[in-house]
Amino acid sequence: MKEFELIENIFKNAQMASIAGRQDLILGIGDDCAQVQVPAGQHLVFSMDSLVEGRHFPFDADPAAIGYRAVATCVSDLAAMGAKPAFFTLGLTLPDSDPQWLSAFAQGMSELAEPIGLVLVGGDTTKGPLTISLQVHGYIEPEFAISRAGAKQGDDIYVTGVLGDAAAAVPIMTGEMMVKGDIYEHFYDAYWRPESRLIAAMALKRVVSSMLDVSDGLVQDIQHILKASSVGAQIDAGLIPVSEALLQWQPSSALKLALTGGDDYELCFTAPESAREEIALITQTLHLPCKKIGQITDSGFVVQGYEGEFEGWQHF
Amino acid sequence: MKEFELIENIFKNAQMASIAGRQDLILGIGDDCAQVQVPAGQHLVFSMDSLVEGRHFPFDADPAAIGYRAVATCVSDLAAMGAKPAFFTLGLTLPDSDPQWLSAFAQGMSELAEPIGLVLVGGDTTKGPLTISLQVHGYIEPEFAISRAGAKQGDDIYVTGVLGDAAAAVPIMTGEMMVKGDIYEHFYDAYWRPESRLIAAMALKRVVSSMLDVSDGLVQDIQHILKASSVGAQIDAGLIPVSEALLQWQPSSALKLALTGGDDYELCFTAPESAREEIALITQTLHLPCKKIGQITDSGFVVQGYEGEFEGWQHF
Repeated sequence: MKEFELIENIFKNAQMASIAGRQDLILGIGDDCAQVQVPAGQHLVFSMDSLVEGRHFPFDADPAAIGYRAVATCVSDLAAMGAKPAFFTLGLTLPDSDPQWLSAFAQGMSELAEPIGLVLVGGDTTKGPLTISLQVHGYIEPEFAISRAGAKQGDDIYVTGVLGDAAAAVPIMTGEMMVKGDIYEHFYDAYWRPESRLIAAMALKRVVSSMLDVSDGLVQDIQHILKASSVGAQIDAGLIPVSEALLQWQPSSALKLALTGGDDYELCFTAPESAREEIALITQTLHLPCKKIGQITDSGFVVQGYEGEFEGWQHF
Repeated sequence: MKEFELIENIFKNAQMASIAGRQDLILGIGDDCAQVQVPAGQHLVFSMDSLVEGRHFPFDADPAAIGYRAVATCVSDLAAMGAKPAFFTLGLTLPDSDPQWLSAFAQGMSELAEPIGLVLVGGDTTKGPLTISLQVHGYIEPEFAISRAGAKQGDDIYVTGVLGDAAAAVPIMTGEMMVKGDIYEHFYDAYWRPESRLIAAMALKRVVSSMLDVSDGLVQDIQHILKASSVGAQIDAGLIPVSEALLQWQPSSALKLALTGGDDYELCFTAPESAREEIALITQTLHLPCKKIGQITDSGFVVQGYEGEFEGWQHF
C-alpha cells in the first residue's frame, strides 16, 4: 500500500467510527470537497487554529496527546460561541509518514472528538515541518449566538476553572523543569488535556452578554471583549482563580501566570447583574468551577491588587 | 501597533473590500468563530489544501504569486464539485511578520478571490516555517453536486485546457533551468496562475457523470474516479492536450509530463455519449479548450500509445 493511501485509511477509519447516523454529513473524506447540509434554521460557525511543533507544543511529544490537545484548542472556540460541535478538517504537515505516529495522533483526536459528535470530514496531508491546522465547525441557533461585542457597563465578569496552570506547565513539558508525581500529573493534564467547557457554554449562552475562551492570557484576551463592546473593565487580582498546585509550586509567580499565561482554554464571560442567580444555578448544577472576578466599566482597564507588568502570548 | 494587530488589519482590509452586501456572512474576522448562514436549499462544500515552502512552491517566491496560486489550487476543488465560491479561511505559518510580504500575499489572494465572490472570513497566523493552509467553502444545489463516483462504462473522458505545463515549469521557477522571454512568461503563468475552471464547471455540472481537478497528475488522479465509480478506463496518449510551448521546449518528455505532472488544476470529467452535443455547445460558448481523451471501460486502466512508466506526485 502506498503511504498516501495508508494515511487516507487511518483518517477514514477515524471518521467511520462516528459518521453513522449523521444526516448532515453528505460526503466525507475522499472527494474533491466534503459536503454538508447545515440543519434548517441553524447557522454554521467555524474556527481555524494552527499549531507548530516547537512553538505551540514541545518537540517529540506524544502524538496522542498532540491530537487530543489540537482538537481541544479548537473546540474551545466553538464553546466560546455556545455552538454545538459538528465536524472538523485537518491540514497536517509532517516530516514523514510514520503509521504508528499517525494512528496515535488520530486516536488522540478521536478520544475528544467522538463523544462530542465532532467528525473528521476532510483535509490535506503534506510533507514538511510538523504543523497542524485544524478547522472545527459547529451549529448555532442564530438567536443564541454569543459574540464578544455584547458586554455592557455594570456587567459582571466571570472566568471558569483555574488560570495559569497551562503556562506553568510549559517548562515541565519541554523538560526544562522537573517536578514529581502528582504535581507532574496535574500540570500534564492542564497542558495536554484542557477541560472542555462545551456543556457549560451551551448552558450559559442564554444568560451571558459576551464570551470568549482564554487562549493567549486573561489580560490580553479580555481586551478583545472590551474593544468589541466599546467598554472598560476592572478586575480584582485577589479573585482570579488559581489552583492549589500552582500556588504551592510557584507561589511568587502564580498570579502573574494566571493573569497573563496562555493555553488554559477556560471561558471568560460577562453577564448582567440580573443573571447572577441563574448563573449560580447553572454552575451548581454542572459542578462548574466559575468565579466572578470583576466588573465591566465605562472605559479603561484596571487590575486591582496587581503591581507587575502584563505580557500575553506574542504571536510573533 | 503590535505585529499581531497589524496582521489582523491587513486581512481585515482584504475582507472588507468584498464582504459588503453578502447576506450569508454574519460574522467575519475578529471573534472566536466566523458565522455563516448557508442559503436555504443549498449545501455547503469545502476543501482544505496545505502548501509548504520548498515543497509545493519555490523558496523566496513572490508573495503575491504565492497568494494567488494558493487560492487557485483550492478554488479548483470547488470547480470540481460544480460549486459556487463563498468564503475561505487561512491558516498561515510564517517565519516573521513582514508587513510588505503580508500585504502582497493578501493582494495576490484578493486578485483571484474577489471577482469570484470568495471572501476571507477567518483563520490563524502563527510563527514557523512558511506553510499555508487554506480552506475554501462553496454552495451547491444538492441535485447538481458532482462526485467522483458517477462514471459509467461507455462514458467519454474529457480534460480541459492543456496538461504538463505546470510540472514543466517547476525547474524554471526554482531557477534550475533557464528559458527566455515568451517561454518564461508562458510557464510562469502555467505554474503561478492556473486558469480557473469555475464557470466551465458550473456550465458542465448538469451533463457530467463525474469530475475532479487534476492536481497530482492525470494518470494518478483519474484512478480516483475509477475507484470511486468501480469502473476502468482507456485513454489515448495521442489525444492528451499538450501546449505548443511544451512540445517545442521539451519534445521528448512533453507527453510524460502531461500524463503524470501535477499542478495543472484542469478539470477531468466523464459524461455519457448522449451529452456530446451539449458539451460541444458549452465548450464553444465559453471558448473552453476541452478534449475527449478516452472512454470509461468495465475495469482496468490502459493508456494507448504510451510506453513509459507512470509516476504521479508523491505526497511523501
